[in-house]
Amino acid sequence: MEQFRVVKSITLELAEAMLDQAVTKARELGVSVNIAIMDEAGNLKSFRRMDGAPLLSIGIAQRKAYSAAAFRIPTGDWYDLIKENPRLLHGIPHTPDLAIFGGGFPIKVEGEVIGAIGVSGASEEQDEEICRAALEVVKN
Amino acid sequence: MEQFRVVKSITLELAEAMLDQAVTKARELGVSVNIAIMDEAGNLKSFRRMDGAPLLSIGIAQRKAYSAAAFRIPTGDWYDLIKENPRLLHGIPHTPDLAIFGGGFPIKVEGEVIGAIGVSGASEEQDEEICRAALEVVKN
Amino acid sequence: MEQFRVVKSITLELAEAMLDQAVTKARELGVSVNIAIMDEAGNLKSFRRMDGAPLLSIGIAQRKAYSAAAFRIPTGDWYDLIKENPRLLHGIPHTPDLAIFGGGFPIKVEGEVIGAIGVSGASEEQDEEICRAALEVVKN
Amino acid sequence: MEQFRVVKSITLELAEAMLDQAVTKARELGVSVNIAIMDEAGNLKSFRRMDGAPLLSIGIAQRKAYSAAAFRIPTGDWYDLIKENPRLLHGIPHTPDLAIFGGGFPIKVEGEVIGAIGVSGASEEQDEEICRAALEVVKN
Repeated sequence: MEQFRVVKSITLELAEAMLDQAVTKARELGVSVNIAIMDEAGNLKSFRRMDGAPLLSIGIAQRKAYSAAAFRIPTGDWYDLIKENPRLLHGIPHTPDLAIFGGGFPIKVEGEVIGAIGVSGASEEQDEEICRAALEVVKN
Repeated sequence: MEQFRVVKSITLELAEAMLDQAVTKARELGVSVNIAIMDEAGNLKSFRRMDGAPLLSIGIAQRKAYSAAAFRIPTGDWYDLIKENPRLLHGIPHTPDLAIFGGGFPIKVEGEVIGAIGVSGASEEQDEEICRAALEVVKN
Repeated sequence: MEQFRVVKSITLELAEAMLDQAVTKARELGVSVNIAIMDEAGNLKSFRRMDGAPLLSIGIAQRKAYSAAAFRIPTGDWYDLIKENPRLLHGIPHTPDLAIFGGGFPIKVEGEVIGAIGVSGASEEQDEEICRAALEVVKN
Repeated sequence: MEQFRVVKSITLELAEAMLDQAVTKARELGVSVNIAIMDEAGNLKSFRRMDGAPLLSIGIAQRKAYSAAAFRIPTGDWYDLIKENPRLLHGIPHTPDLAIFGGGFPIKVEGEVIGAIGVSGASEEQDEEICRAALEVVKN
């Protein structure tokens, strides 16, 4: 019997390097955001709220990261998956802790999800741009 | 005076047989899902998360089973019941612990609900197919 | 930079074998209990409520398993750790989702925690005895 | 009429410098902890979970920081304030989000609280020692 499976989980070192990069990109864009990193199991690893970033985004950033860890897809992909089916369109967005708008991405190494990042506080496009800048830190 | 009424409640034995069948069907379909069985009173009886199944579906599977136990109808039937009435369409999906999309079914014996099953983690169609496979275990 | 660390996570196969053994032991003892297995990250993997087991124990069994996964020690060890310090004795037990009484154990393979088991519904001694019986299934 | 009062709120820059120092001290002590920094309003500013730190401490660290921000005293001071009054001793610890054991401290500049730090995952003494090391970063 296989007793366990091997899982890869993001280190604090990578999480912090990603947060550094995210903050740098946000400053370039002139916005203040919240950034959350979760491990592959959806537990909080690292978090930063930039000075002046919106308070509600403390939670939104975490839910975006959690959603991306929990379903292994970018949060911005959800709408296309549910838009044609009215049951899903009216039902799925009520799932607690699920964000279905852009700004959450899985963090992958060698094809495996090791964690996730969520950014909230600017426009959806800017939140996603900040995520992508942070993901460039990850070596594959 | 009638002092009590007799309620039929699913056994652990049937719940486990249904979970076995659900896991077998999920493997046939090549998907990893969460499966929850609740009794007729909406209390958790049995649960399995297949290796690699999405984390958010731990809760979704339980909410589907709870909804099916609580209203005695498949969760996928809700949309047709509310779609013509905008108050219901925009209000009902906010009900805590109610899932209005497919993948939750009551378990009936001799016309009576003895429990419910909820499956989450694959497409709505696959989640429902896995439920139906599990329901075939029930003898009527 | 180390980007990830390798973690071992319990399989559904081992979780189910442990639940089988737990139920067998509970029947030997003539008690009905709730049994929860979580993975090493504190996410629910598998659960069974025996026929007639107490309803509040649905949650207690899960909190015991969660606590054992989250702190890597048996839940029954907490009291000795806090009893001499009145701040801890009056404060720690209020931690949400922490159980400080017996019936939760980490599941270890090769010295690493791969998950945890929690049992609730009988006496503290019986809950622990059922856990230990289930842990015998684990090969080291 | 005074229309507003000026509030001093910790910057992300100081929060991160404190977290760096806290992680350095934890490594010296050979422990893995969770560290949370909140602003003076009790909103999360910055957070780190060291590799291998206990999961339940994700929440405990935040509750310690919140408690210290909310009442402007170290969390370890609570017990002496309530121990002589049985109503307080048995009542106060039930307050949601209040931690009454050591490991949470307000962050003060020029006599004013600008935020708070909470550490959880090691012994009470070590958690407090890590907080104090981080507080040395603050210039007064």
